[in-house]
Amino acid sequence: MPGMQTIQFNLPQERIPRAWYNVLADLAEPMAPPLHPGTLKPIGPDDLAPLFPIALIQQEVSTEREIEIPEPVRQIYAQWRPSPLFRARRLEKALDTPAKIYYKYEGVSPAGSHKLNTAVAQAYYNKVEGTRRLATETGAGQWGSSLAMACAFFGLECKVYMVRVSYNQKPYRRALMETFGASVTASPSTETGAGRAILAEHPDTNGSLGIAISEAVEVAAKDPETKYALGSVLNHVLLHQTVIGLEAMEQMALAGDEPDVIVGCTGGGSNFAGLVMPYIGQKIKGKCDARVVAVEPTACPSLTKGPFKYDFGDTGHLTPLVKMHTLGSTFIPPGIHAGGLRYHGMAPLVSHVLEMGLIEATSVQQLEAFAAGVQFVRAEGIIPAPEANHAVAGAIKEALAAKEEGKARTILFNLSGHGHFDMQSYIDYQAGKLQNYDYPEEEIAMALAGLPAVE
Amino acid sequence: MPGMQTIQFNLPQERIPRAWYNVLADLAEPMAPPLHPGTLKPIGPDDLAPLFPIALIQQEVSTEREIEIPEPVRQIYAQWRPSPLFRARRLEKALDTPAKIYYKYEGVSPAGSHKLNTAVAQAYYNKVEGTRRLATETGAGQWGSSLAMACAFFGLECKVYMVRVSYNQKPYRRALMETFGASVTASPSTETGAGRAILAEHPDTNGSLGIAISEAVEVAAKDPETKYALGSVLNHVLLHQTVIGLEAMEQMALAGDEPDVIVGCTGGGSNFAGLVMPYIGQKIKGKCDARVVAVEPTACPSLTKGPFKYDFGDTGHLTPLVKMHTLGSTFIPPGIHAGGLRYHGMAPLVSHVLEMGLIEATSVQQLEAFAAGVQFVRAEGIIPAPEANHAVAGAIKEALAAKEEGKARTILFNLSGHGHFDMQSYIDYQAGKLQNYDYPEEEIAMALAGLPAVE
Repeated sequence: MPGMQTIQFNLPQERIPRAWYNVLADLAEPMAPPLHPGTLKPIGPDDLAPLFPIALIQQEVSTEREIEIPEPVRQIYAQWRPSPLFRARRLEKALDTPAKIYYKYEGVSPAGSHKLNTAVAQAYYNKVEGTRRLATETGAGQWGSSLAMACAFFGLECKVYMVRVSYNQKPYRRALMETFGASVTASPSTETGAGRAILAEHPDTNGSLGIAISEAVEVAAKDPETKYALGSVLNHVLLHQTVIGLEAMEQMALAGDEPDVIVGCTGGGSNFAGLVMPYIGQKIKGKCDARVVAVEPTACPSLTKGPFKYDFGDTGHLTPLVKMHTLGSTFIPPGIHAGGLRYHGMAPLVSHVLEMGLIEATSVQQLEAFAAGVQFVRAEGIIPAPEANHAVAGAIKEALAAKEEGKARTILFNLSGHGHFDMQSYIDYQAGKLQNYDYPEEEIAMALAGLPAVE
Repeated sequence: MPGMQTIQFNLPQERIPRAWYNVLADLAEPMAPPLHPGTLKPIGPDDLAPLFPIALIQQEVSTEREIEIPEPVRQIYAQWRPSPLFRARRLEKALDTPAKIYYKYEGVSPAGSHKLNTAVAQAYYNKVEGTRRLATETGAGQWGSSLAMACAFFGLECKVYMVRVSYNQKPYRRALMETFGASVTASPSTETGAGRAILAEHPDTNGSLGIAISEAVEVAAKDPETKYALGSVLNHVLLHQTVIGLEAMEQMALAGDEPDVIVGCTGGGSNFAGLVMPYIGQKIKGKCDARVVAVEPTACPSLTKGPFKYDFGDTGHLTPLVKMHTLGSTFIPPGIHAGGLRYHGMAPLVSHVLEMGLIEATSVQQLEAFAAGVQFVRAEGIIPAPEANHAVAGAIKEALAAKEEGKARTILFNLSGHGHFDMQSYIDYQAGKLQNYDYPEEEIAMALAGLPAVE
């Protein structure tokens, strides 16, 4: 096309990956095993069976490199996958940088984010194994909407505990879940023992993902027909997201470029892992020397400030303990608008590759994240979710560093979702109502002091 | 791909059309000319020069078959065009119909609807001809967001008069426009003579597109550096939308199918025209025998109930008169949630092809439209804009008729935009707060009685 610049690098439906990539097959060091919350001994598959279908428990511990994506899952993926890879030429121009900026855009999923990649897989395996209902938590609502949608597709009931601050900030996310037929409750709620315990101690709490997880796990554990579904953190969830990176590698090849820096935002770690794990596999084989950068909110800095320790996945201490970078499972993060990043811990797998020196981590403040988002939307037209703004901020930082150094670096980041249901946060930001948060040192120290002494 | 069904029919960036298709080149009967609002005589280009750049005025009256799309416009189109064509297999299954249902999805544009197709073109031509600022109206906000975005891309200021009922119902649409740097005012406003006149007579009015147009036109007419931009109705706007149908024809060929019925919703007529005009060109040449169906709201039924007469484009009678199906330019439609369809008239070109028997028209009630939307989102995952729900309802009606008749009909419709900014309407619908509206016979009779006696 003479004169026209290619900015969209698309693959046909046939190029949807046929298998997820499991980086555990290629890591030199194994991950520490999850521990039983009662005995503090390593758990076996039976311990997880009340919560998850067997197929997902197997994926959780698998060391096979490639795990085949079932055809019914790929068939649903075909509605938005392969997702587009864009070259952000107008943003490059606005930044006046010699860097090339690419972004993989997961907001094209009908649920608006990458979360649908694993929601469809989880709903599928549950359907196959006879689950009637799925219970889950959601922060900003991206995960809850995705699971609600996937449940509608597979004819499962869906119960969502939505972190209270997001429940109040984002009524339209809730409406979307309800339109799919899901039942949505603000968390903490009086429906569960875990919720009632938190409310007794903190009646005005914002809630948190850790609390909402406790509620959903409790409900699943009590009802044999209900299983639990988690939107991030666990190995099988991160595995399902690797379609992002697998596609991106093909698309970068189409673009004739290779990334020097790969950036993603991290809350639980799944969109980040989805993009970067296939690249980390290449790094391990010496076929890629890109820097890989996780960007988290300063208000909830598990990777940059949290120790690498065994901790519970939830605030109510119903889940197994996993070894991860954590701020302490009783820590309740400040009510930043990036609700999907308000989690006390980081995926054990992401924590593990940080320990192995395969990735680096940084944090940005809320106001910097929104400033980046506004700069991005004015240049590129797509309004990012507040979570994704952290990745945008990270990418812009890299692009400006490249400018400073006069280097033509290639940056690839994951735009994990759009902000169409997060407009109130942009209104508040533009009205000067949002704030930065200091590192909540004291609260975190207290939460960490309560961790069980394992290893 | 053995076993897998193709549901996504995509074209590469190179297949973005190089020219818009102008059906006027192929119509046997010419359209009636626009008339000057003062003299009631046919207008010339000079009469429109205060409002529009020359390039658009030329397109308005052009009878060239192909009008080249400027490269900078195609370059921006490349971010989301060619837009996907989907086969709605899960909806077909839910309806248990032998019909095949395809939809062209314009909600992938970063503004969320087809409106960006013309917004980019209009902003471009204005920029080239030295315009500093664009003034416009918007109903539901799809057009306003699109123009705000296009203005941000080309460095133009943007002033939007947003119909009051939508301004109140859809604060997040407003926030999106403001994030792009546009200035947004509820219409009718006290900023203009037209607005003040309406407020004096109807202080509690919902507003309407006709009123908002008057305000924007007034502002443009008074300031030499401000031009006016219209989101629908005019020939050049409909022309820019023909990329939809041109792509759809290629994509239907990829799918190995030809439509028997083509469906679109109509308010001003632009998304409908965008999809169908290229097909109508084929119909005229005897190369297509599809039925073409326009679906409008019963509350604002210009095509199905309005006479084909000369009328003003706006309520304040500042614009030229055009010959169209109209309910009378002083008619203020009921406050249905499909704000983009609340226009008293229908695009003269769409009205003209209805008169020529090339299309048919039907109407649906608000509750039927939302029921169709909810059925669609549960099957397909995409939540349609309330306007697009009318097209969905029309397509479902055709699919159920095919089932009734036991015929394997192929249906193609335009899903013109998503409903991410319209969730309040879904909340209200599901809470039983929305209503149907009787044909507003008396108000329309009054409005029609006030039309000038031309021809």
